Amino acid sequence: MIRLALFALAASCAAFALPASAQFAKTEDAVKYRQSALFVMGQHFGRVGAMANGRVPYDAAAATANAEIVAEMAKLPWAGFGAGTESGKSKPEVWKESAKFKELQDKMIAETGKLAVAAKAGNIDALKAQFGPTAASCKACHDSFRNQ
Amino acid sequence: MIRLALFALAASCAAFALPASAQFAKTEDAVKYRQSALFVMGQHFGRVGAMANGRVPYDAAAATANAEIVAEMAKLPWAGFGAGTESGKSKPEVWKESAKFKELQDKMIAETGKLAVAAKAGNIDALKAQFGPTAASCKACHDSFRNQ
Repeated sequence: MIRLALFALAASCAAFALPASAQFAKTEDAVKYRQSALFVMGQHFGRVGAMANGRVPYDAAAATANAEIVAEMAKLPWAGFGAGTESGKSKPEVWKESAKFKELQDKMIAETGKLAVAAKAGNIDALKAQFGPTAASCKACHDSFRNQ
Repeated sequence: MIRLALFALAASCAAFALPASAQFAKTEDAVKYRQSALFVMGQHFGRVGAMANGRVPYDAAAATANAEIVAEMAKLPWAGFGAGTESGKSKPEVWKESAKFKELQDKMIAETGKLAVAAKAGNIDALKAQFGPTAASCKACHDSFRNQ
């Protein structure tokens, strides 16, 4: 009983004292994590864009595979922007305007999810139609929160 | 008709001339991609390990979320090891012993898949049982193909 109580206490304390940054051993890890996740996402997004913009032949299976990775990667970087991780290209606004930052994260996650759905439709027109709004959701966040 | 034939030709040529490395604009991008994917995977794998090893309280939902990301990330880095991307910590054996390298990739992908399944079981014993074999599949590849 005492052991259970202590475990519950430890668990709740851990949860209570766990800002996003605490998921990382070092601040550098949080910065490297968010940069890594965004880089991987960007590589796959670029492949979807190359098809949407006609720079490479449209391949429905490749478009879907890449768009699904983009949609999954889109959920990850944000845990790397915890308190005390001000660094890299991130503007101070990331931590000063966290509500707006969160809103733009959610918008990008939603648009990349729609991109994966559009890719699965298996026609280039559906892909083209959703590529623009998705790219715009990336740019909106970069414009406000990333130093160029 | 001629346009169709030309498009088919262009498409087939593109496909024919597309080693993994050609998915990347620059060799540095391929290296950064594989390093980024492995870093993101490692961060999430470390969180599963912290629970499996009792360093942090077991949280079934967190274990599952992290293990599923590990299993998805495990599929990605390999495209970044294309011809001409010899760099970083990779030993020359990556390109000289590609069959063995592929075998260890597939083993790790399989073990991380099992880790995600084990995490979903929702009990720490299942997670502990599969954590070791998964970690061993990472180490096997590092031992043969990564400079320490």
